[in-house]
Amino acid sequence: MGILSQDILDQLEKQAIELPSWAFGNSGTRFKVFGTPGTPRDPFEKISDAAQVHKYTGLAPTVALHIPWDMSNFSDLRKHAEDEGVELGTINSNTFQDDDYKFGALTHEDATIRNKAIDHHLACIDVMDETGSRDLKIWLAEGSNYPGQADMRGRQDRLQESLQKIYARLGDDQRLVLEYKFFEPSFYHTDVPDWGTSYAQVSALGDKALVCLDTGHHAPGTNIEFIVMQLLRLGKLGSFDFNSRFYADDDLIVGAADPFQLFRIIFEVVRGGGLNNPDVQFMLDQCHNVEDKIPGQMRSVLNVQEMTARALLVDTEKLRAAQVSGDVLAANQVFMDAFYTDVRPALAEWRESRGLAADPMAAFAASGYLEKIAADRVGGQQASWGA
Amino acid sequence: MGILSQDILDQLEKQAIELPSWAFGNSGTRFKVFGTPGTPRDPFEKISDAAQVHKYTGLAPTVALHIPWDMSNFSDLRKHAEDEGVELGTINSNTFQDDDYKFGALTHEDATIRNKAIDHHLACIDVMDETGSRDLKIWLAEGSNYPGQADMRGRQDRLQESLQKIYARLGDDQRLVLEYKFFEPSFYHTDVPDWGTSYAQVSALGDKALVCLDTGHHAPGTNIEFIVMQLLRLGKLGSFDFNSRFYADDDLIVGAADPFQLFRIIFEVVRGGGLNNPDVQFMLDQCHNVEDKIPGQMRSVLNVQEMTARALLVDTEKLRAAQVSGDVLAANQVFMDAFYTDVRPALAEWRESRGLAADPMAAFAASGYLEKIAADRVGGQQASWGA
Amino acid sequence: MGILSQDILDQLEKQAIELPSWAFGNSGTRFKVFGTPGTPRDPFEKISDAAQVHKYTGLAPTVALHIPWDMSNFSDLRKHAEDEGVELGTINSNTFQDDDYKFGALTHEDATIRNKAIDHHLACIDVMDETGSRDLKIWLAEGSNYPGQADMRGRQDRLQESLQKIYARLGDDQRLVLEYKFFEPSFYHTDVPDWGTSYAQVSALGDKALVCLDTGHHAPGTNIEFIVMQLLRLGKLGSFDFNSRFYADDDLIVGAADPFQLFRIIFEVVRGGGLNNPDVQFMLDQCHNVEDKIPGQMRSVLNVQEMTARALLVDTEKLRAAQVSGDVLAANQVFMDAFYTDVRPALAEWRESRGLAADPMAAFAASGYLEKIAADRVGGQQASWGA
Amino acid sequence: MGILSQDILDQLEKQAIELPSWAFGNSGTRFKVFGTPGTPRDPFEKISDAAQVHKYTGLAPTVALHIPWDMSNFSDLRKHAEDEGVELGTINSNTFQDDDYKFGALTHEDATIRNKAIDHHLACIDVMDETGSRDLKIWLAEGSNYPGQADMRGRQDRLQESLQKIYARLGDDQRLVLEYKFFEPSFYHTDVPDWGTSYAQVSALGDKALVCLDTGHHAPGTNIEFIVMQLLRLGKLGSFDFNSRFYADDDLIVGAADPFQLFRIIFEVVRGGGLNNPDVQFMLDQCHNVEDKIPGQMRSVLNVQEMTARALLVDTEKLRAAQVSGDVLAANQVFMDAFYTDVRPALAEWRESRGLAADPMAAFAASGYLEKIAADRVGGQQASWGA
Repeated sequence: MGILSQDILDQLEKQAIELPSWAFGNSGTRFKVFGTPGTPRDPFEKISDAAQVHKYTGLAPTVALHIPWDMSNFSDLRKHAEDEGVELGTINSNTFQDDDYKFGALTHEDATIRNKAIDHHLACIDVMDETGSRDLKIWLAEGSNYPGQADMRGRQDRLQESLQKIYARLGDDQRLVLEYKFFEPSFYHTDVPDWGTSYAQVSALGDKALVCLDTGHHAPGTNIEFIVMQLLRLGKLGSFDFNSRFYADDDLIVGAADPFQLFRIIFEVVRGGGLNNPDVQFMLDQCHNVEDKIPGQMRSVLNVQEMTARALLVDTEKLRAAQVSGDVLAANQVFMDAFYTDVRPALAEWRESRGLAADPMAAFAASGYLEKIAADRVGGQQASWGA
Repeated sequence: MGILSQDILDQLEKQAIELPSWAFGNSGTRFKVFGTPGTPRDPFEKISDAAQVHKYTGLAPTVALHIPWDMSNFSDLRKHAEDEGVELGTINSNTFQDDDYKFGALTHEDATIRNKAIDHHLACIDVMDETGSRDLKIWLAEGSNYPGQADMRGRQDRLQESLQKIYARLGDDQRLVLEYKFFEPSFYHTDVPDWGTSYAQVSALGDKALVCLDTGHHAPGTNIEFIVMQLLRLGKLGSFDFNSRFYADDDLIVGAADPFQLFRIIFEVVRGGGLNNPDVQFMLDQCHNVEDKIPGQMRSVLNVQEMTARALLVDTEKLRAAQVSGDVLAANQVFMDAFYTDVRPALAEWRESRGLAADPMAAFAASGYLEKIAADRVGGQQASWGA
Repeated sequence: MGILSQDILDQLEKQAIELPSWAFGNSGTRFKVFGTPGTPRDPFEKISDAAQVHKYTGLAPTVALHIPWDMSNFSDLRKHAEDEGVELGTINSNTFQDDDYKFGALTHEDATIRNKAIDHHLACIDVMDETGSRDLKIWLAEGSNYPGQADMRGRQDRLQESLQKIYARLGDDQRLVLEYKFFEPSFYHTDVPDWGTSYAQVSALGDKALVCLDTGHHAPGTNIEFIVMQLLRLGKLGSFDFNSRFYADDDLIVGAADPFQLFRIIFEVVRGGGLNNPDVQFMLDQCHNVEDKIPGQMRSVLNVQEMTARALLVDTEKLRAAQVSGDVLAANQVFMDAFYTDVRPALAEWRESRGLAADPMAAFAASGYLEKIAADRVGGQQASWGA
Repeated sequence: MGILSQDILDQLEKQAIELPSWAFGNSGTRFKVFGTPGTPRDPFEKISDAAQVHKYTGLAPTVALHIPWDMSNFSDLRKHAEDEGVELGTINSNTFQDDDYKFGALTHEDATIRNKAIDHHLACIDVMDETGSRDLKIWLAEGSNYPGQADMRGRQDRLQESLQKIYARLGDDQRLVLEYKFFEPSFYHTDVPDWGTSYAQVSALGDKALVCLDTGHHAPGTNIEFIVMQLLRLGKLGSFDFNSRFYADDDLIVGAADPFQLFRIIFEVVRGGGLNNPDVQFMLDQCHNVEDKIPGQMRSVLNVQEMTARALLVDTEKLRAAQVSGDVLAANQVFMDAFYTDVRPALAEWRESRGLAADPMAAFAASGYLEKIAADRVGGQQASWGA
């Protein structure tokens, strides 16, 4: 396929990116959530929408669920997913939308509330047993807004204690991934604000606990590919939440804000042995506030694929030679040569070779699916990012 | 009163900080809005709550309204405010919660939608005529999320055109203040992202158009007091929206995140002749997501007052001498001496001299008002930040 | 030439990027300046090196000078430049390396020092008369490190006063461009920290005063292309200092840190009529701390050219249609399609059609120039960024 | 002593803050280093100047050295320090000012250069044996400026290998502290950019290796007190480099930029048992670019002392009660009450009770020391930050 070698194609063949069920519901900002005709009203409709992404791209065979948003008869949901050609993936817990959790969940001062939050996670593991999911993803929306409000140290200790109880319940083939986030929804301190904290917490748990890296959850200017490198080196990179940002946790389409950063991240994934490594789960976590959701997800997985192809094109032998000799401009040029290579025609060819449309965005648009769901899904309550 | 001279007390006597009606409704993040018992269900109840702040602090004689959230019979509302001991203040327009405005309002590509947004502002001026308000505050929540999505230049031109139509409708004693904001709810470009843009836009309108500076609406690291200085110098600082932040537009209590920054800001206000100058309106714009709203507003106006007292304590003669002589450490020390002076006892005395409680927070807590509204305001729909 | 239309080639043909003489001297950080064999020892050698960049790329016909670093017999220097195939360009003043300027130059409290700084600028205009330069570029390295140290307002007023005296001396065809910078070398306040301040200052001077936008001089997260758009709209964008950054004013090779940002910037230049518009001077301002200087400058002008080609490839008709219809994903895709197009082969062809080497980096490396200057320029004092 | 209890005074009595010898030399930015009359010309004169700070404040009994800047006859230097009333402290290595280290030192691709850097550290440990110093502080100024330039993963592995060789040489009572820094002098990647990396590296070494936290070395917005809490919790906080910043690594006087942040940091030190704990070394690391150096250091240690007094004033019982009950405003108020308390008069009293001047800044100014050294230290080469 033109510029892509068989070896690269073999690696692209294996690539799989998990979709988040909640990306298909409405989402927005604290100011306004804009609705769209056809937005799913239940987990089954979300799965159907997600399956469209896989149908046209061949890149997204699994769908992550959010509990309790996606509570269902999971044997039915699993069957529905299979019928649609996808599988259920990571289970995400939710401890940020209950009034009890105003001042914390796994870290709360009150053992009753901590236990409630722990029980929720145990219930999530029950769901995993039903869905056959391997990963429990914990994003901790806990923290405080004002200096003095919270005892940060006590919370950190309680967090470890709570996580241990959850960890103890994991099956042999199950894992826990702990996401970190710089800020929001708390605005002074966040209980797991950085990779170091997540790393320290999961290291104290054991081998089945790993770090989840969301590409939008860092301070301005952070060199994210460095963290990717470090976590792979330490054997603790469990999964990615891909998205992009200009300012805060903007949750834009991955690769939209800084394509070169995505290139550098995937290059380090490849460098560190994380590509198509089952231990390192690729996943999206985005909010399509103003754009169509299904095409938004399609664009996202295509962006990841294109950038993976570019990262695989780096002439690593030439790169190493330039690095070793201290030839800064030559090393950078080898790197940029791959980034600036237009891989899109070759990927279109590759799609066609697998029976997919060369232009998945156009093919999906032409399919009439969006019009159909807009007509069919009238009435009921549309799912939203927050529910 | 101890360390505060009569001259300083005279200036504090005149200080007035406008409260935003919406601060008394529930607010939150895109993840969750936590409710509180007793939250107002209509503009009348908001005014009553705001009046408590003034009753205990003597600092907040006016209340800003948000249209359409606070649509009412304004003659009744005005009367109600007077009965409660306060007055109606700035009118805030809202062009971010209507589905039509998904891609802009005053800047929209479609003239029909632009006109709708312009008409909304004209209706706001009608409200001002009824309420006797002087200021129309425009915060433009417009922008785009993806590069290429919008024609930034065309939007800027349309913005000017729309503003001119609104400006033309202002009465002789009315003003328009244009707020700028770095980002959110848009995540790639914002149509009025910085003071320079607001300044250029209002300068093209005329003398009755000025800039509104929200202390939470800047890039990380921005020297806000410099902007205060510059806008006062240029004669274009129309009003403040006070709040504080650690990260983005956190909308925390003013002075909570960086008290020294608030000190520096107020020092420049004094330096530039903006204190107790009717042309420079002091106002709060905050979201009390996790703390009680009425005491949250009280703490805020007290913070502004305390910091004003500290700023007025700067020995400007000594400061100038050190500045002129290039004595960096001496100049900084004069500055810090004022900041580190404990003005709280003197302000408590001052309150008592005016018949107010020395400790307004404690007095309000003891008043039973929160318990009363929690009991009285059962049923109905609580007001929220977004409605 | 393949994907580039004749119209695009015509525009690329006209493109010219000015080089800074100081980029050819050694530069570094406050920790260390690493030297290189062959570094120029005087302005003549700098011009010779700069001419190499033009010789191999055809993109850099002029060289900016820094006074007093490049003080010379200017008629000789002009002649030398012509012999080397380039011309002298913008004159940069320097008010940051004299002990007198520790606390300011054009803004200093002391009129004697202000006058010294003003006189320096008048001398720069004398140089411009000799060199035939049009532009006087003023970067004001003035500010303060500690709150209270300086009277920011007084400094702003004195700055205007000083600039007026300099402005008054400009010839009819001469211009003054005022650069702004977020921070450094001052760490609390900077006297011209943002485009708004530069705009306000030059607007008060007159039509021959404009803003210089250095792409590395903004707060983290700033949407620079928005500022480009705004300044072009206001008719006040006088020149660019191109470079790139990950953190602060890193002065890296333009396009190295965020190529997509460079694309967006140049797209707005094109959109606003600034491309190949003599009123908008393109210039580099970079520090090659660890890479070779001449090839570093070559890579830089090539990056600008490549990105200009990509920006010109945007299908603006299709883009407008998508923007008008609110099709976010389509608009973004049109934009990205241009960015992801590989223009390098077509530009290589274009170079060959003009008698240049297809690969200028390789051709220069093969020329032996670096080896030659390393051998020839032994002894003497190498020029450094700071001298 | 007024508001300070005996318990608080006992803790203040024990407080000791180490001074950096290099703070007494000239320092500046990459643009200019301004000199001052009387600047030390050798390590002996630096020690004499440092001793003045201790003489007037009683807070700074030890002085850190930088090798090779402070290479001396250490037995003489030790004797000189004792004569002046101070002791020698932490030894700082330097691997950033040798041409060999352009592309790294402990991480360099070339084993010869790595070994040179390792040997330098072994030599530093020899110095420690002579000076009786406990701590070897390593700040790694290594990294790269361009994506692709360096193999980040290989460097991380080599770093560990190099550190192990250094660690192996430490005596039983000696420690190694590894500093992290967000960026500068490298502008793309830094080999130890965050606390997580330093923590992972020192954890792999052993108990005698700990993290050094420089308060100026974080991304914008980072909650530093959280890191202090976490490192104390993990038993890995070895030392502080105190200073302050508005933008990057500004190296301003500690407490100058954000006094409230310093308060929060010291509160967490106290909370975590780090105050007056020999395992947690307090040290300054600042550059006095525009202010006088000796008074600048005095102001710094006084700021730390004042803020420690305020942090010790927090009514922790009341704070815990408010935290446990979820009373956000009350908890914050307890915290702020301590911050806003004016401890300066009580500390002046405390100084007098120990035979020190109530106002150390004034007493030092009156002593004539600055005038004396300006007269005495004529000729020779002034020490500078970089040498």
